[in-house]
Amino acid sequence: MADISYAKRLEPITGSAIRELLKLTAKPGMISFAGGNPGNFALPDKQVAEIAHELLLSNGKKLLQYGPTEGYRPLIEVLVKYIKEEFGADVSEDEILPVSGSSQAMDLLCKACLNPGDTVLVESPTFIGNLQCLKIFEANLVPLESDEHGIVLEDIEQKIKQYNPKMLYTIPTFQNPTGITMNVERRKAIAEMAAEYKMIVAEDDPYHCLRYKGENLPTIKSFDKDGWVALLGSFSKVISPGLRVGFVATDKNLIRKLTICKQSADVHTPNLNQAIVTEFLKRNLLKDIVINACKVYGEQLNTMLDGLKNIKAVTKYTEPSGGLFIFAEIAKGKNVNDYFKKALEKNVAFVPGAPFYPQGGHENTFRLNFSNADIETIKKGMDILKEVFDEQGE
Amino acid sequence: MADISYAKRLEPITGSAIRELLKLTAKPGMISFAGGNPGNFALPDKQVAEIAHELLLSNGKKLLQYGPTEGYRPLIEVLVKYIKEEFGADVSEDEILPVSGSSQAMDLLCKACLNPGDTVLVESPTFIGNLQCLKIFEANLVPLESDEHGIVLEDIEQKIKQYNPKMLYTIPTFQNPTGITMNVERRKAIAEMAAEYKMIVAEDDPYHCLRYKGENLPTIKSFDKDGWVALLGSFSKVISPGLRVGFVATDKNLIRKLTICKQSADVHTPNLNQAIVTEFLKRNLLKDIVINACKVYGEQLNTMLDGLKNIKAVTKYTEPSGGLFIFAEIAKGKNVNDYFKKALEKNVAFVPGAPFYPQGGHENTFRLNFSNADIETIKKGMDILKEVFDEQGE
Repeated sequence: MADISYAKRLEPITGSAIRELLKLTAKPGMISFAGGNPGNFALPDKQVAEIAHELLLSNGKKLLQYGPTEGYRPLIEVLVKYIKEEFGADVSEDEILPVSGSSQAMDLLCKACLNPGDTVLVESPTFIGNLQCLKIFEANLVPLESDEHGIVLEDIEQKIKQYNPKMLYTIPTFQNPTGITMNVERRKAIAEMAAEYKMIVAEDDPYHCLRYKGENLPTIKSFDKDGWVALLGSFSKVISPGLRVGFVATDKNLIRKLTICKQSADVHTPNLNQAIVTEFLKRNLLKDIVINACKVYGEQLNTMLDGLKNIKAVTKYTEPSGGLFIFAEIAKGKNVNDYFKKALEKNVAFVPGAPFYPQGGHENTFRLNFSNADIETIKKGMDILKEVFDEQGE
Repeated sequence: MADISYAKRLEPITGSAIRELLKLTAKPGMISFAGGNPGNFALPDKQVAEIAHELLLSNGKKLLQYGPTEGYRPLIEVLVKYIKEEFGADVSEDEILPVSGSSQAMDLLCKACLNPGDTVLVESPTFIGNLQCLKIFEANLVPLESDEHGIVLEDIEQKIKQYNPKMLYTIPTFQNPTGITMNVERRKAIAEMAAEYKMIVAEDDPYHCLRYKGENLPTIKSFDKDGWVALLGSFSKVISPGLRVGFVATDKNLIRKLTICKQSADVHTPNLNQAIVTEFLKRNLLKDIVINACKVYGEQLNTMLDGLKNIKAVTKYTEPSGGLFIFAEIAKGKNVNDYFKKALEKNVAFVPGAPFYPQGGHENTFRLNFSNADIETIKKGMDILKEVFDEQGE
């Protein structure tokens, strides 16, 4: 066996706890409140089958040939309109780069912009996958304070002055893992701070369309005048995660640098996958998928909240207006891992909260996903969790 | 406009000259001997259309859902057999990672293994895309001497002792850009040196199946006992570059590290694309594609060689037994860029050789691709090149 000495950048990395967990939860019969999968009902398999068939028969040679790193031109064209309508941001074609899922956008942003030791301000807790990406690029992660309206502005300003950060990473809408949505005032203020302090804002917005109550909010990007905000979008939650298509919209010079990094990362995102997403947008098929998904997910969310209400050991939980996740707490000093293992034995999975915190700790927190189990399954799973938590709680 | 200060790693990077060129050559009527595209005739559009349709109707929900970073299980299973038969290497399932084109394998290898300043031994000239990747990861690139049988062993040994390199990057079969194939003795010796000196060998072998004369040679990987060799394979040249599916086969601990890096790079390679390639292997469809492509490419190669013979200004050129490229020289002291611009004006494109050299220079060299133009077009293009070279040559 080769005793390779690996790069220093991997030293703090242990692999994504969520990805490892997903393997456990693939076990048949497991009720999974882990993961962040869209519900199977929402995946348009028949439509994709017809569209792929049509595209390959009419334009197959071009789709199977090499494509430009800059992206499939028809997708970029429809994205201009989509980003305007859904995200409220005016961007031109040269400010958009289609990518292989929005995770790739984060990887390319880090590669293009971060030197080892550069400070990146992050929500705490935040998305494990992108935390791992930031760690691999040896960022100095500085956690920010949040309340029920998102990141606290005073804390951003204070940390900007203290750390001179290169970047702020935020999921302002239905945050992962908390489900919290940042209010409009703060979005606007963050766009202004980005320009004032020359700080890149990576605005990760994969759940944007999945709103079950309240009104669509403009993105931070919509308030961006000088190109300091990079909007990271994804079709994983509304068409298919398996196709791996997302986009980044930002300053055109930054797009150029991201494109250079993408050349040697994967040359280009698969043409067929980009073309399939293009058709969903062009034929206006996305709308119905989103309406249907929102209706079902909204009911699933309420069912899960009802279940949580009945678990005495759960002292606090978020009540999101959209997205895929609820974040919950048990009493401080208790460790959710004890409940987690018991729950797995009884075939219910969720995700302990600690790995979402850049500085660890918070062993009394956990994340629940409600999109990937139907109402009956959620009821059953929550009953089991109640049993597990009540038992252990004593 | 945001005046972002980009990462130091991008300072030496100007973007891939080839990719920029490809844009020029997309102009209608252009005869392109640039690029490394398979011929359109060889892209199995009808078969992919039927297979994609079938897969999505029978297993669409699973294919559109998130998949494991480790890869689509049925693909890994058929790759074990394919790697044995085509590349002569015995690897087990946990020694294989499907990737988004073999370029991604190189990106992940660099991310997992290279610290800034680590020495990587490279052929000179070599593939521009992976040179760019190595530069982004701030490798200290040390060029190796080659002759008509590949890299000169004495030079490797001497440079190992001088630089203590972390990695050797080689394209042993139908090298890009030279078309040269390394002989068996050197392959075996490199595998042994890798283990002796604890040096990773990235064996990039995308053209392996495209042999037009002579016998299939065992890979360096086939002589690897301890896992120091990483075989980078691609389906871009034999099924479709647009689908972006390749693989890396190496030591299982290294596979684990590459998988961790892939988690935050693109989560996983699209399931549908992996499943399509799986069907081509399972149904034994690849064989006929390769036989047909080899027949046509072989004739195209000969036609281009005939054309080159007639150009007086061309003082030297390789006569490959396979692959996609011929590498040629004009007299030392002359600059091929003068011919290049004239040729572009007359609608014929090729690639100047200088960017393929890690240390630049060699302005008297150029690369010709023969896979992406039919016999008549090659004749026409070579006649134009003769005109251009003869005229300028005086």
